[in-house]
Amino acid sequence: MAKYVYFFGDGGAEGSSEMRNLLGGKGANLAEMTSIGLPVPAGFTLTTEVCTAYYDNDRQYPTGLVDEVAEHLQRVEQLMGKKFGDRDNPLLVSVRSGARASMPGMMDTVLNLGLNDETVQGVIAQSNDPRFAYDSYRRFIQMYANVVMGMSGDILEDLLEEMKDERGVELDTELSADDLKQLVGLFKDCVRKTLGTPFPEDPHDQLWGAIGAVFGSWMNPRANTYRRLHNIPASWGTAVNVQSMVFGNMGDDCATGVAFTRNPSTGENQFFGEFLVNAQGEDVVAGIRTPQPINKAGGDGSLLSMEELMPESYAQLMQIQQSLEKHYRDMQDIEFTIEKGRLYMLQTRSGKRTAKAAIRIAVEMVEEGLISEQEAILRVSPEQLDQVLHPSLDPAADKRVIAKGLPASPGAASGEVVFCADEAESAAREGRKVILVRIETSPEDIHGMNAAQGILTARGGMTSHAAVVARGMGKCCVSGCGEIRVSYEQECFTASGGLQVKKGDILTLDGSTGEVMLGEVPTVQPELTGEFAALMTWVDKVRHLRVRTNADTPHDSKVAREFGAEGIGLCRTEHMFFDAERIMAVREMILAEDLEGREAALAKILPMQKGDFLGIFREMKDLPVTIRLLDPPLHEFLPHTPGEISELSEVMGVSAQSLQATVDSLHEFNPMLGHRGCRLGISYPEIYDMQVQAIMEAACELVKNEGFSIIPEIMIPLVAHVKELEILRRNAVRVADEVIARYGVNVEYLIGTMIELPRAALTADEIATEADFFSFGTNDLTQTCFGLSRDDAGKFLPGYVEQEILPADPFVAIDQSGVGVLVKMGCEKGRKARPGIKLGICGEHGGEPSSVIFCHNAGLDYVSCSPFRVPIARLAAAHAVLLEN
Amino acid sequence: MAKYVYFFGDGGAEGSSEMRNLLGGKGANLAEMTSIGLPVPAGFTLTTEVCTAYYDNDRQYPTGLVDEVAEHLQRVEQLMGKKFGDRDNPLLVSVRSGARASMPGMMDTVLNLGLNDETVQGVIAQSNDPRFAYDSYRRFIQMYANVVMGMSGDILEDLLEEMKDERGVELDTELSADDLKQLVGLFKDCVRKTLGTPFPEDPHDQLWGAIGAVFGSWMNPRANTYRRLHNIPASWGTAVNVQSMVFGNMGDDCATGVAFTRNPSTGENQFFGEFLVNAQGEDVVAGIRTPQPINKAGGDGSLLSMEELMPESYAQLMQIQQSLEKHYRDMQDIEFTIEKGRLYMLQTRSGKRTAKAAIRIAVEMVEEGLISEQEAILRVSPEQLDQVLHPSLDPAADKRVIAKGLPASPGAASGEVVFCADEAESAAREGRKVILVRIETSPEDIHGMNAAQGILTARGGMTSHAAVVARGMGKCCVSGCGEIRVSYEQECFTASGGLQVKKGDILTLDGSTGEVMLGEVPTVQPELTGEFAALMTWVDKVRHLRVRTNADTPHDSKVAREFGAEGIGLCRTEHMFFDAERIMAVREMILAEDLEGREAALAKILPMQKGDFLGIFREMKDLPVTIRLLDPPLHEFLPHTPGEISELSEVMGVSAQSLQATVDSLHEFNPMLGHRGCRLGISYPEIYDMQVQAIMEAACELVKNEGFSIIPEIMIPLVAHVKELEILRRNAVRVADEVIARYGVNVEYLIGTMIELPRAALTADEIATEADFFSFGTNDLTQTCFGLSRDDAGKFLPGYVEQEILPADPFVAIDQSGVGVLVKMGCEKGRKARPGIKLGICGEHGGEPSSVIFCHNAGLDYVSCSPFRVPIARLAAAHAVLLEN
Repeated sequence: MAKYVYFFGDGGAEGSSEMRNLLGGKGANLAEMTSIGLPVPAGFTLTTEVCTAYYDNDRQYPTGLVDEVAEHLQRVEQLMGKKFGDRDNPLLVSVRSGARASMPGMMDTVLNLGLNDETVQGVIAQSNDPRFAYDSYRRFIQMYANVVMGMSGDILEDLLEEMKDERGVELDTELSADDLKQLVGLFKDCVRKTLGTPFPEDPHDQLWGAIGAVFGSWMNPRANTYRRLHNIPASWGTAVNVQSMVFGNMGDDCATGVAFTRNPSTGENQFFGEFLVNAQGEDVVAGIRTPQPINKAGGDGSLLSMEELMPESYAQLMQIQQSLEKHYRDMQDIEFTIEKGRLYMLQTRSGKRTAKAAIRIAVEMVEEGLISEQEAILRVSPEQLDQVLHPSLDPAADKRVIAKGLPASPGAASGEVVFCADEAESAAREGRKVILVRIETSPEDIHGMNAAQGILTARGGMTSHAAVVARGMGKCCVSGCGEIRVSYEQECFTASGGLQVKKGDILTLDGSTGEVMLGEVPTVQPELTGEFAALMTWVDKVRHLRVRTNADTPHDSKVAREFGAEGIGLCRTEHMFFDAERIMAVREMILAEDLEGREAALAKILPMQKGDFLGIFREMKDLPVTIRLLDPPLHEFLPHTPGEISELSEVMGVSAQSLQATVDSLHEFNPMLGHRGCRLGISYPEIYDMQVQAIMEAACELVKNEGFSIIPEIMIPLVAHVKELEILRRNAVRVADEVIARYGVNVEYLIGTMIELPRAALTADEIATEADFFSFGTNDLTQTCFGLSRDDAGKFLPGYVEQEILPADPFVAIDQSGVGVLVKMGCEKGRKARPGIKLGICGEHGGEPSSVIFCHNAGLDYVSCSPFRVPIARLAAAHAVLLEN
Repeated sequence: MAKYVYFFGDGGAEGSSEMRNLLGGKGANLAEMTSIGLPVPAGFTLTTEVCTAYYDNDRQYPTGLVDEVAEHLQRVEQLMGKKFGDRDNPLLVSVRSGARASMPGMMDTVLNLGLNDETVQGVIAQSNDPRFAYDSYRRFIQMYANVVMGMSGDILEDLLEEMKDERGVELDTELSADDLKQLVGLFKDCVRKTLGTPFPEDPHDQLWGAIGAVFGSWMNPRANTYRRLHNIPASWGTAVNVQSMVFGNMGDDCATGVAFTRNPSTGENQFFGEFLVNAQGEDVVAGIRTPQPINKAGGDGSLLSMEELMPESYAQLMQIQQSLEKHYRDMQDIEFTIEKGRLYMLQTRSGKRTAKAAIRIAVEMVEEGLISEQEAILRVSPEQLDQVLHPSLDPAADKRVIAKGLPASPGAASGEVVFCADEAESAAREGRKVILVRIETSPEDIHGMNAAQGILTARGGMTSHAAVVARGMGKCCVSGCGEIRVSYEQECFTASGGLQVKKGDILTLDGSTGEVMLGEVPTVQPELTGEFAALMTWVDKVRHLRVRTNADTPHDSKVAREFGAEGIGLCRTEHMFFDAERIMAVREMILAEDLEGREAALAKILPMQKGDFLGIFREMKDLPVTIRLLDPPLHEFLPHTPGEISELSEVMGVSAQSLQATVDSLHEFNPMLGHRGCRLGISYPEIYDMQVQAIMEAACELVKNEGFSIIPEIMIPLVAHVKELEILRRNAVRVADEVIARYGVNVEYLIGTMIELPRAALTADEIATEADFFSFGTNDLTQTCFGLSRDDAGKFLPGYVEQEILPADPFVAIDQSGVGVLVKMGCEKGRKARPGIKLGICGEHGGEPSSVIFCHNAGLDYVSCSPFRVPIARLAAAHAVLLEN
């Protein structure tokens, strides 16, 4: 029979940190901490297999589970010298979720479980503190009614507020034991009245109710959203941890806190955390009371630290955190409680950190001899690297700082103010940038936080929900900005000095300083640290995949080189056509009635194109540059509104009517599938001829006059049939050889093609006979493989991802089982027909980590992505190698 | 060393009819006829391998060829007792092309080769007829100058006309020997002056010039066009036949003719042909003189027949034609010449025939014991079957017959009159139907004949160029309509009574009667013959592939059943929505702001949809019916012009502005790749629910009340990912089971999907887990596989086919190496995951013969096509089986 429950307590545990998949992160670490002798309240873990069985079996528990739980509960009772449900010496427990991957704030928790009208008397007797006992009792009822029984949290909270109003007090702590006792009665009546069912008195009913709620919460919408955002499969399931309670709220010799073994924002090797005296753990995370710093170094002196208030406990905690970091060889996020002067560890886990912190911690741990270079590489996730590559506020810019909060998650963000998560989401869908402003955030706000550019909260510390989640997302966040007063009803907030900021006003946040500014503040390029450079050196030693960039201008080329690009994988030539002085010549070409007219217009464009290529070749020096010949349909270069057409008609001296007729004749029902790419090259060979001439003249000039050794790569787009490439290659070779002969230099060049249509992938062996290289255009390949226009998918694709019809947006992460199959087929067939063929990818996927890993595994030679994503691709390429082993 | 030249003559030949690939059709048959003892003038054949070597080797002949030709020429000289180039007893030869497949009128021919100022004296001496000698000489110069030297034919023709004007005569035959001698001089001067090079006097130069011209003509534009239209690969090459001349124009005891062993138009077993006294063979084919019938049965009594004029030769010919048909076991097309009373056979080949004739001949030959049923099936090409399935003129309709010509190729056609081939082609591209009217047609007109609905010529007989080519194409043709006078300059023709018909006027032709009518005449369904029925019975015994039809109405369903459809493979439900009374309810549904509004509108549509299905099920009885749920994007049902929108806004009581806003919000950049197909079913499940309800209610009602045993097949379109199908299948099952329970009957149903996106084919194994059947939607699959919109491809796809970038329009014949690979992959993966899965195809390709054969080979269970193409698909399916062996 399978074992479903694992015990931990008193220096011994059935589990270990290796059993994360079975026990969840929390359960595995509780077992591990117990085993290495740390003070952990005894308890047991119901495995993730119970959760899986529960869902596989129509929400029924596996047989034997009830007995196994009862046995383990008994062991806890024996160890703690208390008895569950006993009126004299009752054992109280917490029931918490704990999945394989950390899902902060996602899963529901019940504390103080085991309290009822009888056992509360035991707690009073034991603690000698009726106020504490009833406060624990009413908290339990509130939590249980909400989490387990599904009652709205506001109803009981309102009763609490009413009571405070009646008593004329402001804080919960000002209520007396009798007040709280009365509240317990009111709460229970209210539950019965609201739900039509009594609050359970039997502690065993309470326990199974809570276990069921934790398993049930695995499938709630919040958890589903989080899993979707973080690519966690639903099949993993959650474990349930049942643990004896310890109390941080039994008086002023009690406390509770959360800490990180190093600074999670900067990575500095400094113990960092917050705590609250006389409080339960949830109070710290929820951010309702502003917590005190754990040590002097972490505060600004305005609040006393734990180091000062509880020096002995602090010293013990200091030792524990050091041994935990050594043991786990990673920065830890820990939770602890001090009950009547005694320290208990409630949790340890690998701490979430910003990209900047991740890099610094990883590099410093290598220096400290804790981890290897390869481990350091794996400690920084390519997804989050984005953060350090993005611009920060220009220090020289004028800033109107209107408030200052905690620097909860670094970065800079500007956008319109919105006050609710739904609105943030809908605005983002319309392409608007927003800043989400909340008094505090809760798990219900996740989707809005994800949609916003940045988050500002009035309450909560550095470890509040807003701060933790924002850091995980790499979003800029300023938390605990107590100076502002937020009114949800009036959709505005008031800053110091009475300044009102309304919905729609533009705000800028600096997550690294905590500054809140009115208006948009200009940004500057990020300065990359020495740790970043060190890490990327290791990355480059490990990876096999080359990383190029998509760049159309000398400026982008320069930026990309600084980010480590090893060439250009996609230089789009059409963007060069939109330049104000050129577009007229381009339009002349399109409107020309015959070959001569087109050639005359092309002759005007030639020197400009040549200038573009000279600039780009100069920046890239001798690195490879792949230039794609004209791709979009010609109508993209023409105006479409009557106003624009009449304007153009005047400039060009063509009648508006005839211009309109041309525009009409070029109209396409499905331009994505229309007269574009190499089809233009077949219809109007003179366009490609001009482009090839410009490329080769630029290359020859630099080779001849400046000693470059360029090998231009000429790329023909949208090939469906090898004959297209055969014809266009022949034309290109003719023009190129003519230029080379004219310059009298020896310049090699390659001619290749995009593989961006299913037919090209299916017949890649034929196409390879005419191609020196393939570049997979996975944007178009995704569109055609799915029959899905990127321009139109907005109406239903988000719903597809939400409903988990698709595991991810296929335009973001490559669809490995469809599009990926075509890419692999293209590689295999291409290599078979032409063993030395160069293979790359130049879709947006080239900078997305899971896609980069796919490209490595598919055997591509390089990926190409936008300049800012080059380091991400480099890191992902190294991960691909390390994850292979 | 390879043998490049094959001899035939005097009852013996090195070749045979089996060597068609090497000797071409004409060469092989000349050898065969020689071997079986028929009177064939001696000669030899240069093989098709010479042609291939010539083109592979930059237009150089293989070494040794010159010597081999010289040897064979000597053999001919010996046999004929004449000497090539001899001034006393000169041998004259013809040089003709002869490819593996018959290409009538496509390749160039030179006659009377070997004549010069010296040898013409020998001909005079031998024939004792200077007029004949000089006429032959001037014809040779005309032909050679045009065909070999590339001079326009008009220039010398003009000189001939001038001479006739000067002499005041009308016919060529009225010119004297001196006139002709003078003309020879004028011709040669003109050649030298026009081309700057003298006409070759040396017969060997002439011979090699002509051989080179034949090989060269293999790649001329006309030949390329013909090969493209008939899918003949360029690599086959042509042979060259050099044969000693015999003359049908040496006097009134000479003649030349063309005949068919059975009637090529009707298939009647009656020797059928035409001849001209004192003429060369080209005169008959070119249709310049109206020829006489070969026998009394073939004429109308106005002209004397060969049977009457030359009874002995006729009797001999009769015997020869009978033995040829027995020998070849097929209807033969023969050419003969009578020189001074002696009959020579110049050619025999399998005769082109109309579909009607092909069917009758095949069935009668089975009855006569000449061929087997399976051979009979292969004698009728599925491509041409189309002809007999198309409507003919309604005999009851009013007809204004304005002229009558020869019934050269049966069928009925209406269209605008055009007078030139280019115009016919460009009009057809614009979707206009045209009738091409010419004085006579020539190979230069092929593309226009192909584009026209029908062809009318003023000159030429039943075996003229126009007649032969039109029959091959299955086009209606009336030839030799001598009553009309065509003026190309004025773009009109005059019928009897002075009636003028101008370009653009509508004309109707009846190719079965030769009638020419003004205006459009209504048509009636074809009456299928007993021979057709017999043939189709054999076809159905042989084929494995089932044939269903695409039908959306009871009427189409009925027509298709009559044509032998074995079910409906595609019933599109959206066409039902466009009905005037329904479209309003559909629009209400689209414009509804919420689910309730949509459901209310759908409730109105439900009974109408149910009625549709009742009607279709009734027609199809117990045959399978596959119904596709709604596929097009919703905006297709809304008006788009401002006028239509304001009209609709009044009717619906919605403001034009809000209506416009809805239309705008539904706009898509690429509707082909947009919010359509099953994506609608995911977004608006209520639409598919309504359709499934309508289908199942109709089926249950007929099963319950009328004892049908229907198994409806519900088809979900545009699935890209198995999860889409999983969700929609679940919904459909829920609705269907609810209906079945409500009716209390036992109705089975299948739920399947279209495979019409590359991703669906690539993941067909996953999709098959949720699908009872697959139907390959090869229209959309072609669009997505090629990245090519059918609506937009018109701008460049014809050019692609013309330039041979694509072997055929992939929307007509399935692209086997791209789209076909996806179909095969889908079949294999689908069958692997679900062994019993039903596989079919419902794109336009389902009725195109080469695609049907592909479907058979891919292992599909059925094809589905439009009603009129059902018999074509059945026949092609039988061919697929027979060609397999």
